[in-house]
Amino acid sequence: MALIVHKYGGTSMGSTERIRNVAKRVAKWARAGHQMVVVPSAMSGETNRLLGLAKELASGTPNDEHNRELDMLASTGEQASSALLAIALQSEGLQAVSYAGWQVQVKTDSAFTKARIERIDDERVRADLDAGKVVVITGFQGVDDAGNITTLGRGGSDTSAVAIAAAMKANECLIYTDVDGVYTTDPRVEPDARRLATVSFEEMLEMASLGSKVLQIRSVEFAGKYKVPLRVLSSFTPWDIDINEEAKSGTLITFEEDENMEQAVVSGIAFNRDEAKISVLGVPDKPGIAYHILGAVADANIEVDVIIQNLSKDGRTDFSFTVHRNDYARAVDLLKAKVLPTLGAADIVGDTKICKVSIVGIGMRSHVGVASKMFRVLSEEGINIQMISTSEIKTSVVIDEKYMELAVRALHKAFDLDQPAA
Amino acid sequence: MALIVHKYGGTSMGSTERIRNVAKRVAKWARAGHQMVVVPSAMSGETNRLLGLAKELASGTPNDEHNRELDMLASTGEQASSALLAIALQSEGLQAVSYAGWQVQVKTDSAFTKARIERIDDERVRADLDAGKVVVITGFQGVDDAGNITTLGRGGSDTSAVAIAAAMKANECLIYTDVDGVYTTDPRVEPDARRLATVSFEEMLEMASLGSKVLQIRSVEFAGKYKVPLRVLSSFTPWDIDINEEAKSGTLITFEEDENMEQAVVSGIAFNRDEAKISVLGVPDKPGIAYHILGAVADANIEVDVIIQNLSKDGRTDFSFTVHRNDYARAVDLLKAKVLPTLGAADIVGDTKICKVSIVGIGMRSHVGVASKMFRVLSEEGINIQMISTSEIKTSVVIDEKYMELAVRALHKAFDLDQPAA
Repeated sequence: MALIVHKYGGTSMGSTERIRNVAKRVAKWARAGHQMVVVPSAMSGETNRLLGLAKELASGTPNDEHNRELDMLASTGEQASSALLAIALQSEGLQAVSYAGWQVQVKTDSAFTKARIERIDDERVRADLDAGKVVVITGFQGVDDAGNITTLGRGGSDTSAVAIAAAMKANECLIYTDVDGVYTTDPRVEPDARRLATVSFEEMLEMASLGSKVLQIRSVEFAGKYKVPLRVLSSFTPWDIDINEEAKSGTLITFEEDENMEQAVVSGIAFNRDEAKISVLGVPDKPGIAYHILGAVADANIEVDVIIQNLSKDGRTDFSFTVHRNDYARAVDLLKAKVLPTLGAADIVGDTKICKVSIVGIGMRSHVGVASKMFRVLSEEGINIQMISTSEIKTSVVIDEKYMELAVRALHKAFDLDQPAA
Repeated sequence: MALIVHKYGGTSMGSTERIRNVAKRVAKWARAGHQMVVVPSAMSGETNRLLGLAKELASGTPNDEHNRELDMLASTGEQASSALLAIALQSEGLQAVSYAGWQVQVKTDSAFTKARIERIDDERVRADLDAGKVVVITGFQGVDDAGNITTLGRGGSDTSAVAIAAAMKANECLIYTDVDGVYTTDPRVEPDARRLATVSFEEMLEMASLGSKVLQIRSVEFAGKYKVPLRVLSSFTPWDIDINEEAKSGTLITFEEDENMEQAVVSGIAFNRDEAKISVLGVPDKPGIAYHILGAVADANIEVDVIIQNLSKDGRTDFSFTVHRNDYARAVDLLKAKVLPTLGAADIVGDTKICKVSIVGIGMRSHVGVASKMFRVLSEEGINIQMISTSEIKTSVVIDEKYMELAVRALHKAFDLDQPAA
C-alpha cells in the first residue's frame, strides 16, 4: 500500500462527464489498496470567468487590498471543483471529503495572487486517510497567518500537489494533464519529438524555466527540494486501463542518475517566444553600470533573463538583456526616463521579434564541445546568434524569431533526439 | 453615525452592472458617515448552477457526507459575489474587505445544508469598521466547530444579515430585495394590495410562516429574538436617491406597538399553495392516536402544519393534517404501510388541491369576532372551509385551491386592506 497524490488540471476537470472519469480513475487506484489524496484545479475556464468579472468592476492600479479580493474570488473555482469531485467519488462508493486550503491547512505567505507555500499541517488529512477516506484538497490556494485566502499564481495547483505530496511523504505525485509526458521538444514544432520516459529533476527545472509549459517551475523546485517522485501523465487515457501500465506511463522526473536512465548528452530542446531584447548603447565602461541599469529595472518589478555586456571599445560598451514581452514597453520607457540621462549612454534600442532556443541535458556536464556543436549547427543553417547564455546543463541562444522552428528542428536532429534512447 | 447592515439578494447582485449599483448605494451610506456591513447573496442563478452540477454527479440518497460537500460547493457562490462587491466598493474609492463565514467567524451547528447560527465573533469586523473600512460578509454560510463549511438553507442570507446585525448591535438591518416592502397581500393576486409602512414583528413572523416569501422566517425569528430593527426595501430604486428618503422607504418591522403604528385589526392576507391534506378515517377514538399517527410522520422528518381531529362518532374519529406537497406521497405511503395496519383505521385519503388562506393582525388580540367575520365572508362567496387553525394573531382556513384568489380578494376588501391606513 502506497500513499499517492493525484493532480488533475482544469481540462481534466472541464465537465461533469470528465469529473466522473477522474473519480473512476481515482477509485481504481484506491481499490488497488492505495491511500489517495487528489488535488484538482478549477474547471477549465472558471478562473478566467471569475477574474473577467473582477476586471469589469476594478479600476485603478491593483494594490494589496484589491489582490486580496482577487484571491477570495479566484479560490472559489478550486473549492467548487473539489467538492464536485468528492461528490463524484462518493457516487463511486468511496468515502470522500474535500478541504479548502485553509482547512488542511496549507499555510502561505501573504503575497496575494502569487503566494508561496510555507508549511502544510497534514494531521487532519492523515487521520482521514487512516479512516479509509479519499481526501480531495483544493489546488492553487492557501491561507496566510492572518487567515486571509491566498492563491499561488497560475499553474499553482501543480505546486499545491507537490507540496502536499512532500508534506505527506507520498510515494509518488502523479500530475495528470492534457499531454502524455515531457517531450524532447514541442511536437507542434518538431513532429519527430519523442516522449522521455525519465528526465532528471535538473533538466526538468531548466526546461520549465526555459518555457516548457508542462509543469509550473515552482512545482519542480518544490519536488527537487523535498525529493518528491513526480510523474507527468495523460488524463485522457481511458480510466480503466491497467493500473500497472498507467503507473509506468508518462514521464518520471528522477533525482538519481541511475544506470537505467537515458544517457543522452542533450535531453531536450526548449524555446521561448515570450521575451524581448533591450540594448543600452554607448555606456561609459566604469564600475557599477550593471547595477545602475538593472537596479532600476528590478525596482520596477521587471524580471530580467539573459544579460550580456560587450567588450568595451574607446571606454564605451553596449549592455543588453531580455525581459518578458509584456514588460518591454515599460522597461524601455523607464530606461529612457531614468537611466539614459544619468548614465550618459548614447541610446536605448530594442527588439521584440526575438526568441530564445536552449539545449538542455545533464550529459553536458561530462561532455565537452556540446555548446560549440550547437553554434555550428545554427551557423550551418545561416542563423545569426544575438546573445548566448550558459549554465552547467543548458546552453541558450537568442536569435531572430523567424528562425525559431528551423533552429529547433536542426538541433533536435543534430543531437539525435529523434532516435529512440539507447 | 450609525452602524448599518445592508443585505442584497441574488437579483440585486445579478450582474457586474448591478453589483456596481450596489457599491454606489453602499458608498452613499458610508459617505453619509455610517459604519457599513454588507451581506450579499450569490449572483442570481449561481447557486442553482452549482447544485445542478452536483446533481449530475450524485447518486444514491443524500447523507451527511454528501451534504457536507454540497455546502463546500454552494458556499462558493456567496464568496465570489462578496469579493466582487469588495472590488466594486474599492473602485468607488472606499476601503473594503470581504470575509467568508469561517473568517468572521459565523459559527453554526453541523446540520449541513440547513445549519443554524450559534454565535458570531464580531471582533475582526469591528476593528475593520473602526479603521474606516466597509466590511462585506458572505451570506448563507458559516463554519461548524470542526471547521467544516455549512450553509443555512435557501434564503439563508437574510438570516446571516440579521444575525450579524444582532451580533454587532447594528442600528438597523436593511434587506434590499426585488420587492419594495411588505404588502397587505400578494399584488399579483390582489392588484389593490397596499404596501405597509410598518408591520409588527409578530405579524411578520406569521406572514413569513404562512408563505409570504419576502423574508426567510428564521431571519424574522432572529430579528425578534435580538430586537434587530429590520427594514425591507427595494434595491431597484436609483442608487442616488436621497438617503433620508431611502431610509424611510419600504416596510419597517417593529417591536413596539407605538401610537404611530397602523392599528388595523387585520394587517395582511397570506396564502400558501404548497400544502396537501391527508385524512386518516375511522380511527378508534382512544388515547395516543395523535402520537401514533404523527409520531411516525415526524420520525420520517416530514413537517406537519394544520392538524384537526373531528368529534368522535360510534367510538371512531377522523384525523386530518396538512404536509408540504413534496412530502405528500411519502407521507401517504408511510401511513398506509405502518399506521393503517397497527391502528385499525378504515382508510387514508388525501387531497393535494387545497390551499391555506390566513388573515394576520395583532389587532385580533383585542378585537372579537374577527375570525367569524372571515368565515362569513367566505360563506357569502360560497367557499367551503375544510380545516380551521387559529393562533393569537392569525386565523387560517384550508379551502379548495380553485377558490384561493377569490378568497384572498374578498377578505382583502372585507377587512378594508385596500384603504389607506387611518
